[in-house]
Amino acid sequence: MFAVTILGNNSALPAHERHPTAQVVSIEDQLLLIDCGEGTQMQMSRYKIKRSKINHIFISHLHGDHYYGLIGLLTSYSLQNRQTSLHIYAPPGLEKVIQTQLDVVNAILPYELIFHLIIEEKKIVDEEKFSVECFHVQHRVPCFGFIITEKKKPRKLDMKKISVHAIPFNFYGNLANGEDFISPGGDRIKNELLTTQNISPKRYAYCADTKFYPAIAEKIMQADLLYHEATYLDNLRERAMERFHSTSLQAAELAGLARVKKLLIGHFSSKYESLEEFLAEAVPVFPQTELAIEGVTFII
Amino acid sequence: MFAVTILGNNSALPAHERHPTAQVVSIEDQLLLIDCGEGTQMQMSRYKIKRSKINHIFISHLHGDHYYGLIGLLTSYSLQNRQTSLHIYAPPGLEKVIQTQLDVVNAILPYELIFHLIIEEKKIVDEEKFSVECFHVQHRVPCFGFIITEKKKPRKLDMKKISVHAIPFNFYGNLANGEDFISPGGDRIKNELLTTQNISPKRYAYCADTKFYPAIAEKIMQADLLYHEATYLDNLRERAMERFHSTSLQAAELAGLARVKKLLIGHFSSKYESLEEFLAEAVPVFPQTELAIEGVTFII
Repeated sequence: MFAVTILGNNSALPAHERHPTAQVVSIEDQLLLIDCGEGTQMQMSRYKIKRSKINHIFISHLHGDHYYGLIGLLTSYSLQNRQTSLHIYAPPGLEKVIQTQLDVVNAILPYELIFHLIIEEKKIVDEEKFSVECFHVQHRVPCFGFIITEKKKPRKLDMKKISVHAIPFNFYGNLANGEDFISPGGDRIKNELLTTQNISPKRYAYCADTKFYPAIAEKIMQADLLYHEATYLDNLRERAMERFHSTSLQAAELAGLARVKKLLIGHFSSKYESLEEFLAEAVPVFPQTELAIEGVTFII
Repeated sequence: MFAVTILGNNSALPAHERHPTAQVVSIEDQLLLIDCGEGTQMQMSRYKIKRSKINHIFISHLHGDHYYGLIGLLTSYSLQNRQTSLHIYAPPGLEKVIQTQLDVVNAILPYELIFHLIIEEKKIVDEEKFSVECFHVQHRVPCFGFIITEKKKPRKLDMKKISVHAIPFNFYGNLANGEDFISPGGDRIKNELLTTQNISPKRYAYCADTKFYPAIAEKIMQADLLYHEATYLDNLRERAMERFHSTSLQAAELAGLARVKKLLIGHFSSKYESLEEFLAEAVPVFPQTELAIEGVTFII
């Protein structure tokens, strides 16, 4: 299972029962939290997110609508007596903000909080089953996008044939990596007889709070799913530009440039009560567009 | 109108769709915010609170469930281009927490934020139509209760009689204060002929996060409405004591000691899904008890 659940889809000023930005990515047996606006922990309860499975939190930038819910979540973990280390990836400054709030009441967390500074484009997580890279987007303050990539062995084991040829268990990893098996008697069994081609690893790209910035396209080329902010409709393209935000049309254009399979748009300005226009504007340019509706899980 | 609207009635860990502590007191044409847990600004929207009418915010203590929503509210005021000064009353430490969060993105608020330190018991607000005093309660960190008192002139003008006697407008204040009127010809018109006795000024007492502490009673004696925390049921009296919280029974006992007219209980532990037991426990001891249900406005 590789999927993303939307917890907040509004821009900075919460309105119309929409919440500031937060998303939970489910990959294998882990959950990754991307951004954590005010009320994220309540949204997690509402949508039955198992918060204990989160070990990595990614904060795109330090505008409050992307992190004001973090201290509440960290405190709740403490009240629930979390023991597992928690990794937080964010541009410089967040650790001081969090530490100041803990210090004011001499609070000590019962778990280890590990801050990782995001300053330049690089791979920031490299786990057994997935990796996460960050890349620059263009906002008023340092802001990063994230791309999460599954890791899959190139070959998928055919257990029936493996059993017929009595391949030893400790060689399974080599088979998945495409190697031929040499029997104790010296016979070579070709890998293609024992495995099939695996499905390609999938990729999810997250671009929060950015003006239209075509250079993003090459970083996220052919991702399976792209979340891109769409704060305004295109008749406010000037305002979007001034405030380093995008329009729905621009999000669709970027999805087209990057040839992604599907586009999710969110971070809607509070000035819009209905979201239908956002879709109406994007779909003619990029048909595979959906609104990032809160509580909905999108399979990647 | 003197009333309080409950925005959050849960203790630290939000649960069962209940929110951390926040209340809005409506007095004459102003709103006062008492405590501001995470999500308070969303609760204000949900319950149609006119946030622009808030000029005074009181934070009882610096546990996060009483202030984590403040920075979000302050930021939203900024996005709404608030110009009016905002007064915040809190124990030491809050200004640094807020300033750290503003500094991290070089944010400058378009309105003046004035912090008032609460260190000792005193009158902290003295406006034309009401005053606010703070007093010590007993929690693990410095924590204060608040008592809000209406100001009413002792006498209420009888406009019909005032008109008959042609009393000049600029003497109305003197009449309300009980003075007789001396006519230009030297005739004395007794105050009792021109005014009637006014209703007494009313008082609202707020006691958040405290263990059972009988000394509170004399500070809030005969208040019209008392909000007192009731984190646990009385079978967890020991735990309540250890954690410097109260039980529902203890809240009722305090209401009895203080001979208040009515008691509101709140700050319920997340361990309780239903709140009926809280009421069942308090009412036999103090019959005029009600649950502080979110969204409900209680007239004082």
